[in-house]
Amino acid sequence: MLRVNSDRLRKSLEEMGQIGYGGPGKGVSRLALSDEDKRARDLFVSWLKEAGLEVIVDPIGDIFGLREGSIDAPPVMAGSHLDTVREGGAFDGALGVLGALEAIRTLNDYGIRTRKPVAVACFTDEEGARFQPCMLGSGVVAGLMTLQEAYAKKDDAGISVEAELERIGYKGNKWLKPVAYFELHVEQGPVLDAKGISIGVVEGIQGIAWWQGKYQGEANHTGTTPLDMRRDALLGAAELVCSVRRLAEEMGHDTRTTVGRLHPYPDIINVVPGQASFTIDLRQYDEALYEDGKKRAEALVAQAASNHRLEYELEMVGDAKPVHFDPAMVNLVEEMAREAAFSYMRLPSGAGHDAQYMHSICPTAMIFVPSIGGRSHCPQELTDFDDAAKGATVLANAMLRLAGS
Amino acid sequence: MLRVNSDRLRKSLEEMGQIGYGGPGKGVSRLALSDEDKRARDLFVSWLKEAGLEVIVDPIGDIFGLREGSIDAPPVMAGSHLDTVREGGAFDGALGVLGALEAIRTLNDYGIRTRKPVAVACFTDEEGARFQPCMLGSGVVAGLMTLQEAYAKKDDAGISVEAELERIGYKGNKWLKPVAYFELHVEQGPVLDAKGISIGVVEGIQGIAWWQGKYQGEANHTGTTPLDMRRDALLGAAELVCSVRRLAEEMGHDTRTTVGRLHPYPDIINVVPGQASFTIDLRQYDEALYEDGKKRAEALVAQAASNHRLEYELEMVGDAKPVHFDPAMVNLVEEMAREAAFSYMRLPSGAGHDAQYMHSICPTAMIFVPSIGGRSHCPQELTDFDDAAKGATVLANAMLRLAGS
Repeated sequence: MLRVNSDRLRKSLEEMGQIGYGGPGKGVSRLALSDEDKRARDLFVSWLKEAGLEVIVDPIGDIFGLREGSIDAPPVMAGSHLDTVREGGAFDGALGVLGALEAIRTLNDYGIRTRKPVAVACFTDEEGARFQPCMLGSGVVAGLMTLQEAYAKKDDAGISVEAELERIGYKGNKWLKPVAYFELHVEQGPVLDAKGISIGVVEGIQGIAWWQGKYQGEANHTGTTPLDMRRDALLGAAELVCSVRRLAEEMGHDTRTTVGRLHPYPDIINVVPGQASFTIDLRQYDEALYEDGKKRAEALVAQAASNHRLEYELEMVGDAKPVHFDPAMVNLVEEMAREAAFSYMRLPSGAGHDAQYMHSICPTAMIFVPSIGGRSHCPQELTDFDDAAKGATVLANAMLRLAGS
Repeated sequence: MLRVNSDRLRKSLEEMGQIGYGGPGKGVSRLALSDEDKRARDLFVSWLKEAGLEVIVDPIGDIFGLREGSIDAPPVMAGSHLDTVREGGAFDGALGVLGALEAIRTLNDYGIRTRKPVAVACFTDEEGARFQPCMLGSGVVAGLMTLQEAYAKKDDAGISVEAELERIGYKGNKWLKPVAYFELHVEQGPVLDAKGISIGVVEGIQGIAWWQGKYQGEANHTGTTPLDMRRDALLGAAELVCSVRRLAEEMGHDTRTTVGRLHPYPDIINVVPGQASFTIDLRQYDEALYEDGKKRAEALVAQAASNHRLEYELEMVGDAKPVHFDPAMVNLVEEMAREAAFSYMRLPSGAGHDAQYMHSICPTAMIFVPSIGGRSHCPQELTDFDDAAKGATVLANAMLRLAGS
């Protein structure tokens, strides 16, 4: 078994975590293609060169560090992303990129020449916090979005992806596709931490359904409009928030539903809201339950509208079916964790990752390490460095096994 | 019985309604002390002078047109306001001011010299749409707020009431207090229109309780956080919206409750909301029920917090007890409606008005006319001009009766 250099990994994570760090309570802000993202990329590229890797930047700005094998073949790849949400943490994404780099540095330490090449990947705009949709770089690599579509995406200030790629100097010209893909990531949930387990063997990713909707009623004076003459759009939306939550409880099987956004209009203390816009997020790992849950959630939107004499619009804005990773890849991760004598358990991922898209073009698997308290996408995001190193060790051995020596 | 000039009233309402008119669907916008408000005031003052009235402007910018009586005494006053909400209608406020002016014009037409003086009043910033709190002018006249407090109030751009009064030339220097006060107003609710009744004899004003509150839970990833580990602030707030509504249904007796504002934070589709701010508006005309409703509403805020493991803040930002107008004044309005052979009914006001504050310094009553479809504070606000004239006729006769001849 290879063992990675835990101190070196920690030092890399800490150094990278300084870029975009806003001070105590502010966490790390490295929005995709921002100045902070550019500094993170520049640091990463300098480390790739120090490790003797060939640096490849593709047209959507994904950065790869390629280590030659003894045969000419597509590489075994591992990676993640260096962009963050606003005021996020130092581990989400960075651990997968720097863990993969640490795996390759470890191959260097051990003087191992792999048969197939290996590569570390940093994908562009995984978070979608600045440019929507999320997972832009891996989406283009996987052919789920055209390069021109991705280039045309704009941030809130109207600045395009293409213009920012050119500005920060990361619009490359060479594609790199792997033979297999691994992604080490923090769980972003509380399960491993609560159970005291170091390694999550990720079997797949929950299906993720997203909707945006709007109720239309009638705005009226709160003091003068009798209850039975109202068409209160916020009341309908509030009922929906409650009924969508009950749906998940009734469905069971780890169904998760959330209303994350809700905006009444006109948003005045003494006006019965005439409009209310909302979102729904539904997650389920089983295909049949996922499809059933989607139908039932949409029926609840109609039900609350009917109960309160509202009209409504509902648009599905995301429908990522459940992903089940290649069993051989999942088994390989499990085997490496067992051989390293780390505690482990199988679980699905509740969050989307670049691996979700890479799965569509090559055998893919993920390795989770615990998020303390389940916190993520916030300044409190934290993973024990020992666990991070264990994850990188599993990753290094899985990459080596697949690349051969 | 005096009969007002219906055409003249209509013409005045239409001419005033052009000031701040934004075009079809945009209604009338005359925010307090704005350029539009100044133009409305200037037009009103020109009409006061045409009617031979003495123009008095007080230090908070309230405008009065005083018609001498045969004795020197405080006047019988009627009025309302000329400011509007953003994109409001042409009747709310303007009808009360121009109806009172029409009453006085009618006294001129009939050549009647009243015993006591009569006056028409236009109060500053009734709506509170630009400067909070609402009913600023009548609040100062009634001694419920000091002049210096009122002067210091600022709009969202940081501009003070005093600076704007000086800018538009309506910072006067003479107070005028009445012996009695009448206010003609559109109902702003659907009751009279639904019943086909022309005159509402307003017995008082519902108590109005306002709260601002905030739930604090924990923001977490929607995909990775199991339901039973969540502290979803929006879910708590949504439950509150529903339970506050049920409270009004359970209390009955025309209790009205509304949540008009609700803001989740961080307001992201895939983040369990960690915070949610909200408002509550409760109305009830009976004192004992009003006090009971306040206690029960506050208990519901605590209950939803407890149900979802949230912390909360709750601040009462308005607590206007129910007002019951002077019975003799109310009877007088009823008598005038009956003598004029107009259909009428008694009802409380659901909305606050300048009369609410004037009630604290002199005998006060209000006259309502129907709002078509109950619509108000919107471009669709409309009252039949025949009903408007009936309201002004009741007002003219009530003023004459009280002033004597």
